[in-house]
Amino acid sequence: MSFPRLTINSTRMKQDFDELATIGATSSGGITRPALSLEDIQARTWLADKIEDASLTLRDDEVGNLSGVLYCRYPNAKTLLIGSHLDTGMNAGKFDGSIGICAGLECLRTLREAQVALPFHLEIINFTDEEGLWQSLFGSMGLTGQLTESHVFDSVQDNAPFRVALYQAGLVPQDYYKAKRDPRGLLGYLELHIEQSDRLERNQKDIGIVTRVVGRSAYRITFYGEAVHAATNYNRKRDALQGAACFITHIHELAQEFEGGMVNCGNIDLSPGSVTTVPARVSVSLELRHDDEATLLKMQSRMQEVANECAMCYSLRLEAQQLLQRKVAYMAESMNALIETACEEQDLSYMRLVSLAGHDAQMLAPFTPSGLIFVPSYQGISMNPKEYSEWHQVEAGANVLLGTILGLAEQLTTQF
Amino acid sequence: MSFPRLTINSTRMKQDFDELATIGATSSGGITRPALSLEDIQARTWLADKIEDASLTLRDDEVGNLSGVLYCRYPNAKTLLIGSHLDTGMNAGKFDGSIGICAGLECLRTLREAQVALPFHLEIINFTDEEGLWQSLFGSMGLTGQLTESHVFDSVQDNAPFRVALYQAGLVPQDYYKAKRDPRGLLGYLELHIEQSDRLERNQKDIGIVTRVVGRSAYRITFYGEAVHAATNYNRKRDALQGAACFITHIHELAQEFEGGMVNCGNIDLSPGSVTTVPARVSVSLELRHDDEATLLKMQSRMQEVANECAMCYSLRLEAQQLLQRKVAYMAESMNALIETACEEQDLSYMRLVSLAGHDAQMLAPFTPSGLIFVPSYQGISMNPKEYSEWHQVEAGANVLLGTILGLAEQLTTQF
Repeated sequence: MSFPRLTINSTRMKQDFDELATIGATSSGGITRPALSLEDIQARTWLADKIEDASLTLRDDEVGNLSGVLYCRYPNAKTLLIGSHLDTGMNAGKFDGSIGICAGLECLRTLREAQVALPFHLEIINFTDEEGLWQSLFGSMGLTGQLTESHVFDSVQDNAPFRVALYQAGLVPQDYYKAKRDPRGLLGYLELHIEQSDRLERNQKDIGIVTRVVGRSAYRITFYGEAVHAATNYNRKRDALQGAACFITHIHELAQEFEGGMVNCGNIDLSPGSVTTVPARVSVSLELRHDDEATLLKMQSRMQEVANECAMCYSLRLEAQQLLQRKVAYMAESMNALIETACEEQDLSYMRLVSLAGHDAQMLAPFTPSGLIFVPSYQGISMNPKEYSEWHQVEAGANVLLGTILGLAEQLTTQF
Repeated sequence: MSFPRLTINSTRMKQDFDELATIGATSSGGITRPALSLEDIQARTWLADKIEDASLTLRDDEVGNLSGVLYCRYPNAKTLLIGSHLDTGMNAGKFDGSIGICAGLECLRTLREAQVALPFHLEIINFTDEEGLWQSLFGSMGLTGQLTESHVFDSVQDNAPFRVALYQAGLVPQDYYKAKRDPRGLLGYLELHIEQSDRLERNQKDIGIVTRVVGRSAYRITFYGEAVHAATNYNRKRDALQGAACFITHIHELAQEFEGGMVNCGNIDLSPGSVTTVPARVSVSLELRHDDEATLLKMQSRMQEVANECAMCYSLRLEAQQLLQRKVAYMAESMNALIETACEEQDLSYMRLVSLAGHDAQMLAPFTPSGLIFVPSYQGISMNPKEYSEWHQVEAGANVLLGTILGLAEQLTTQF
């Protein structure tokens, strides 16, 4: 059986994109729509309306994932998930997450209008808290059964505010485990996203086909010194901020020792915080990324060494708390081949690359065959109001997503 | 005329000290009694009661300074001020400020009880906000006429909360200028304080005679980069935190280039503060100290250069805001000679030294002949619950203060 080669309705998708970009819009042209905020809830309501307007079936689950389903004629068919997220960081970009939702929705609408008889159910799903305001990749971890009680009930860092936010969104925190799907019911997972890096732009490629998502580990490193008067002798000072500054400088040097290693020290917190008092405690929150699992582990142990050396150098006590450990996630070659074919059919240039950023696809990848499609990001700028992709690039991405769905449909019906 | 060589009542002074140490006591053994807080007001009430109990005359002024006066028989006599402060930093020590108040009060009581006929009025004064929660050395600046409207009505950094705190303490902010005294009515100023450094301890001296108070300048240095995704290429990142870390490390190196130079980076503030976003803005609050005015100015201009170099190195924009500029303050040799004589009469060892910390005495010094007496601080630890001086050291300091008052009285009556 052969399927028509459809294209999405770009005007309609752009209209959705522009509507969505008004929800949580900031004065500097960015978006603040953190997970479970009023803005996020407003965006979900908007998506639910769009799903109903398109005569798709609305579905949700116990971790707040929100879906629209286009059921096929076979009740026992498997489901192909098309995922992304509506939540954003603080004053972040309009494209991150949003284009995946808009493109997925548009694919379902296009296929429904064309009355294409797919051999699988097709589900567009908005995952809760991809960005990690509360718990990074919460929704996709819930769906794949990777959440544990400690993600919701954390006895070390009390996360009661997260539970309050879940309750306020109509969710019962202790029911998180019910969101787990049976992987046997899934055919696979596809996601469209901006690259958040500049490799496609530099190589003048329309589409990126992700082979794997980098592994990532996050830490909170705390240096403890002593709060003494600013005029204390240098040989008596145990200045936690000097230790932290030493660590920040050296950890970035370390990252550059490992080809492809990435480090970000994204937050710093100090006490007591008076200009006349030597800092007694400084906490640095940081993350390490690498696309090779063994190298990531090596970076982690070197990071600990660097922290120890800096603490010793300023006679500080050190505390290292690991916040996160995400393994390198491999996309399915079967999906990548279909994406490649779709690009070729549409005369789009493409390249295979590693995702430097985390995505829900990395949670889905060990669970069901997954594919991740990138479109170029202007200058690689992301998490910033300046994040930008040309609309024709987004449109091309959406059409590759549609082509991949149709390619999969064709492959399956040919096999039958 | 010769004056009796009295000694203070150490038991009574210790009782006062212990009572005062309960006001704002923290669970870790420190004191949190910031200026104009409820705890500070409670301490003032306590002091007012002590002043009245001692049959001294209560006095206050428009910047909240609180005094007890022992009037002499000559209505037109000048006044010798004995100053210190009841306010403390956050979880700071019990000795800083408090011993000056307790010793001053005890001197007045001892002199009154012994019915010593002083040739001057003697005034123990508690200065408002020495520590600078709102405006460092506010009370002594007010008394010496060094406050300007911008200290109370700041249009850049809106200080409305300070004005609210003043109102709540029963003060009218715009009346600050009325607190200025006529220096012709003053005979001089004396202050007893802990050293907050370990030179007396290391040199096994009982008493420090301060020759001058270091000059001090404080800045807020802000680095502006760009908030991009953590996985952005190093050559595209403009990481404000890397710039700030570079600055912190180098500014401490710089301090050590200048013999006697001191630097403290006491606070740091960052945005947006997410582990997945490169820091876009980091502000470092710091201060520089030196006991030589010209060297301090040289340190300031080198600090600006270092900040510029670090900003350039990470392609950051720089903003430097000066928060404070305090000149080196010289104590009066006439007072120092009297303190020295008192030490010798009491068989106490002493040394002359520079005060590395700021004190109300530095505001009084250009206004009226001033003297500043130090007692040893255990290991030089200050601004910390571990701040400690042996009681016999405090007692010796109080007796030197009393001896200095009596020596001045003798000097004056001999001159008549």
